[in-house]
Amino acid sequence: MPESSPALSEFDLIRRYFTRPVHKAALGVGDDCALIEARPGHQLAISTDMLVSGRHFFPDVSPRALGHKALAVNLSDLAAMGAEPRAFTLALALPEADAGWLAEFAAGMLALADDHGCELIGGDTTKGPLTLSITVFGDVPPRQALRRDAARPGDDIWISGTLGDARLALGDCRGEWLLPEPDFTLIRPRMEMPTPRVALGLALRGVAHAALDISDGLIGDLGHILERSSVGAIVDVDALPRSEILDAQPEECQRACVLAGGDDYELCFTAPVGARETIAGIARRLHLPLTHVGSITPEAGLRLVDREGNPYVFKGASFDHFAAP
Amino acid sequence: MPESSPALSEFDLIRRYFTRPVHKAALGVGDDCALIEARPGHQLAISTDMLVSGRHFFPDVSPRALGHKALAVNLSDLAAMGAEPRAFTLALALPEADAGWLAEFAAGMLALADDHGCELIGGDTTKGPLTLSITVFGDVPPRQALRRDAARPGDDIWISGTLGDARLALGDCRGEWLLPEPDFTLIRPRMEMPTPRVALGLALRGVAHAALDISDGLIGDLGHILERSSVGAIVDVDALPRSEILDAQPEECQRACVLAGGDDYELCFTAPVGARETIAGIARRLHLPLTHVGSITPEAGLRLVDREGNPYVFKGASFDHFAAP
Repeated sequence: MPESSPALSEFDLIRRYFTRPVHKAALGVGDDCALIEARPGHQLAISTDMLVSGRHFFPDVSPRALGHKALAVNLSDLAAMGAEPRAFTLALALPEADAGWLAEFAAGMLALADDHGCELIGGDTTKGPLTLSITVFGDVPPRQALRRDAARPGDDIWISGTLGDARLALGDCRGEWLLPEPDFTLIRPRMEMPTPRVALGLALRGVAHAALDISDGLIGDLGHILERSSVGAIVDVDALPRSEILDAQPEECQRACVLAGGDDYELCFTAPVGARETIAGIARRLHLPLTHVGSITPEAGLRLVDREGNPYVFKGASFDHFAAP
Repeated sequence: MPESSPALSEFDLIRRYFTRPVHKAALGVGDDCALIEARPGHQLAISTDMLVSGRHFFPDVSPRALGHKALAVNLSDLAAMGAEPRAFTLALALPEADAGWLAEFAAGMLALADDHGCELIGGDTTKGPLTLSITVFGDVPPRQALRRDAARPGDDIWISGTLGDARLALGDCRGEWLLPEPDFTLIRPRMEMPTPRVALGLALRGVAHAALDISDGLIGDLGHILERSSVGAIVDVDALPRSEILDAQPEECQRACVLAGGDDYELCFTAPVGARETIAGIARRLHLPLTHVGSITPEAGLRLVDREGNPYVFKGASFDHFAAP
C-alpha cells in the first residue's frame, strides 16, 4: 500500500489513483473534457447517482466496498436500460487526502469497472464531506432500450435474484434486529457489494417490455413503471423471491424487506406471456433465478395478494430521501 | 414563488423543478438512464465538476447565482475544448427540500442552460450536505478539439477577457482587503456568475493549438498545458489583462490576483503567430478582448517577466484543494 502523505496534492491524487490509459475512449483523464466516439448505430445511455456518507453508506464502510458499490449502483441503471457499459466519470469530495483509503477505494471501483469493460474517462476531486457522484455511459441500439413506460396490460412481472437481503443486513447494523453472525456474514455483501445485473439487461433486449432496477424498494419502484406506462399490477407477495436466510425471519419482517427494502439492485421487468420459455432459458444461461411474481393490469393501481389470493395491505412505504421521518 | 412544503418528496422535487421536455435528446429525466443520439461525424466531449458548500461557494450564496455558476463552470470546460454544449446531468445533495430555494436554483441554472441550448437530461437528488455535481456533454468534430497537449514552441499565448476580479471579490468577502462598495458590486458577478466562453471556444476550432479554462489560477493552469505539451513559456505579468478596478489596487495584489486567482473561467490558449489577425477578428466579432501575453518556448518551465523584461519571481501558489494550508 502506498505511503500516506499529508501534502499529497489534488493533481498527485488524480494521477496516482485515477489516471489510466483508455482504450475505447478517444481521450481520457487529464484534459478539460474526455472525448468519446459514438458507437455506430447506437444511442448513448447516461445515468448519474450521488452517494452521501451517513445516508447511502456508513462513514466507516470499507473503502474497497464503497468503491465497488458506487460504481455498481450506476452500472445497475445501465442494466435496467439494457445498455452495455462503456465509460464513467467520478466526482469525489473527501475530508482528507488519505492515500491508503484512496488506494483501496480505487481498487474496489476499478476491479468492477474492468469486469465490465467500463473505462474511467474523467472526474473531479475536492475537499468536502465524503460524497461521490458517478455518471456512467453505455451503448444501446435505438428502440431496444428497456424503458419504464413500455409495460402493457397482460405482461408478466419478473424479478431477478432475491429481494430484501440488503434491507435485512441494514436492520442488523441499525439494531432493528439481530441476526446470527454467520447469517449476517452471508448477506452483508448484498448491502455493501451489490451485483449489477448487466448481462441480464443485455439478454432482455427485444424480450422484455419495461424494466428498472430496484433501488428504493419494489413497491415504490414498480410504481414508477405503472405510472409511466399508465397501467396497474397485481403482485403475489408470497411469490417474491427471497434468500433462505430471509425466509427464516418472521413473516412481517420478510414482507417488509421484499416489498420496501432498498438497495437490492435486482431488475424488475415486464414481458409478454409468450416470452416465458425464452426467459427461463436466459435464467439457465446466466445462472440467475428469474421469478414470475404477478401481472400488469389495464386498471391503475398496485394490488398485493398473498399466496391464497387474499388482498394484502402493506403499511410501510418506499424509501424517499426527503420524506418526513 | 411556490409554497414551501415540509413533506415535498424526492420525486415531487425532481418533477417540479427539473423535469422538462427534451428536444435534442431521445429520452430525458424520469427513466433509469437518459438516451442521446450521437451527432453524426462528431465526438462527444464530457466533463464533470463537483461544488461543495463552504469550499466553492459561501453557504448563504444566492441560489440563483449558485445554479448559474454550477452549470457555468462545466460549460467553461466545454468551451476550453471547443465543444458545443448539448446536454447535462445534475446530482444534488441538499440538507432539506426547500421549495423556494430550489425554484431559484433551478431558475438560475436553466436560464443559462437555455442560453446555450444545453438540455437537462437526468440527475439525482438526495439529502446531505449541500453538494452539486454536474456532468456536461458537448459535440466536437474529430481532431478539432482544443487539447492541452497541443501547444508548440513559438506559439503565442492568449488570454480572453480579464483575470483576477473573482479573486479580488473573494478577498473582500474574506476580509483580506476592503473595496469601495460600488467597486465590489461591479466585480461580484465575476465571482458568483461567471460567463463561460463558449462562443470563443467554437471560434477557436482550427485556429488555436492548445486551450484550457482558468479555474485554479493562470500559473497552475498554464502549467498543465506546458507539462502535457512538453514545452515551456515566457509570460509578461504586466501584459496580463485586468479590469480598471483591479488596476487600481496595489501592484502585488494585482499580480497575485491575475497570476494565481482562481474562478476566472477565462480561456488561455496558444496559437501560431500567423493567426494573430484571425484572432483579432474573433475578438471584434465576439466583443471580447483577447490579449497576447507571452510565447511558448521549447525549453521547459514557466518564466515570468515584468514590463521591462526583468525576471519576476511570484511567491504565491495556484489553488490546490488538498494542499497544506
